[in-house]
Amino acid sequence: MTSDLPIGVFDSGVGGLTVLRALRRRLPAESLIYLGDTARVPYGTKSVASIVRYAAQATDHLVSRGVKMLVVACNTASAVSIDPLRERFAPLPVIGVVEPGAEAAVAVSRRQHHLVLATESTVRRHAYAQAIARLAPGARVDEQACSLFVALAEEGWTDGEVPDAVARTYLAPRMTHDSGGPDTIVLGCTHFPLLHDAIRSAVGPDVAIVDSATTTAEAVARVLAADDLLTTHGRSGALTLLATDGPDRFAAVGARFLGEPIGAADVEVVDL
Amino acid sequence: MTSDLPIGVFDSGVGGLTVLRALRRRLPAESLIYLGDTARVPYGTKSVASIVRYAAQATDHLVSRGVKMLVVACNTASAVSIDPLRERFAPLPVIGVVEPGAEAAVAVSRRQHHLVLATESTVRRHAYAQAIARLAPGARVDEQACSLFVALAEEGWTDGEVPDAVARTYLAPRMTHDSGGPDTIVLGCTHFPLLHDAIRSAVGPDVAIVDSATTTAEAVARVLAADDLLTTHGRSGALTLLATDGPDRFAAVGARFLGEPIGAADVEVVDL
Repeated sequence: MTSDLPIGVFDSGVGGLTVLRALRRRLPAESLIYLGDTARVPYGTKSVASIVRYAAQATDHLVSRGVKMLVVACNTASAVSIDPLRERFAPLPVIGVVEPGAEAAVAVSRRQHHLVLATESTVRRHAYAQAIARLAPGARVDEQACSLFVALAEEGWTDGEVPDAVARTYLAPRMTHDSGGPDTIVLGCTHFPLLHDAIRSAVGPDVAIVDSATTTAEAVARVLAADDLLTTHGRSGALTLLATDGPDRFAAVGARFLGEPIGAADVEVVDL
Repeated sequence: MTSDLPIGVFDSGVGGLTVLRALRRRLPAESLIYLGDTARVPYGTKSVASIVRYAAQATDHLVSRGVKMLVVACNTASAVSIDPLRERFAPLPVIGVVEPGAEAAVAVSRRQHHLVLATESTVRRHAYAQAIARLAPGARVDEQACSLFVALAEEGWTDGEVPDAVARTYLAPRMTHDSGGPDTIVLGCTHFPLLHDAIRSAVGPDVAIVDSATTTAEAVARVLAADDLLTTHGRSGALTLLATDGPDRFAAVGARFLGEPIGAADVEVVDL
């Protein structure tokens, strides 16, 4: 019975739809319910206390609808609210995107010299640096806040002169080191995969670029299997989309992140 | 008695500090209380219903502290919430920035061909186009949403390669017309005066660039005088700063908009 409940996915806005996409690909039979807190996006420049409160309100809402697991698909919310959420909603399994992202980075890095690109709040908490250090003690982790990448991805300016110049401005000073510079770039915000090409052109061909979406979907599959929570019905899972503000903008901007069209009529507005 | 109450100034975040600065310069004896809704910034991409609700909550708070007038220093909130606020809080005088900005534009324009730069929400409401049409029937008003200008101003990237490229991308297609293009640029968002130089370099030397801050301060002085509400104490007015989220970021980013340092300890956090 429990195993046929949906997986709840919570994000500050539309960025987490990149994680939703990876979940649907990896676990097509699972039902998913996505809540984007678009009325209060972006979280990346807000205080820890506010983010923790917002995350708890969103989780309350998803739990009231019935979910078997919570995925925090926002890096900022993962960085600051995973522990309070696990404590408050135990025994609900809660998975964030930071730990899976750190795993992916450590797995591909040759010299364990990482450069994490994230929002201001995620960088201020050193969330990735700590997660990477737990997996690879002695790793070197540089961190760079890239707030403008969020605005570029939302505006749909993902290639051309402007994103190239923004990526160069953030990244060029980070790529030159006596030691040869970082060999792995961690995309520590769900918006940043859309800027992949601009980031690639700023860092050159020899650096690995990793994001959390695929490894988060793997982590979810692992936990569902371990807890005997995989769905058994064998059909394609249902998808429910919730937002805390305007369905029109959610549909228009979200489609770029989900990688498929979204109808505004399919987005239910909820008040947290 | 009433005349010695402060003027309440409400904004979605720190941008309205450019208006606060103009008010202090024009009316140095007036006390001012500024409320920046930094927990829910930016308003420019949110729905009308949400913005109207936020504006009413902020005004409730300022009224509960005692103010003799309300200045809505946010273009987006002015564009969508002035009428509901005037209705709900009558007889409190409520002044927005759109009407004064439109007045300034009509006053300087030679051919009455305007290009309004604003947020998505302000453009969607055609707030400036309507205000300009009331003052100059037959004026031509083009509108361009420039969401990235907000992010650039908050990041402090106000000159150099990136803002120049962003301004060019938004504005170059707007400047060529059979009729010769717009002769007046209206900065319809309080963040945009910080991008003045990049905008100037994109539009060339022959176009007038106007913003609302100075004319809004003039409008406030006019209403205070007409309603016999000018303060009589003759000292320098006090300044109170309120925010709905992190005082550290308000102080750091806000100083660029206010044009003078802000101490984080001087910012009081309020919950709306």
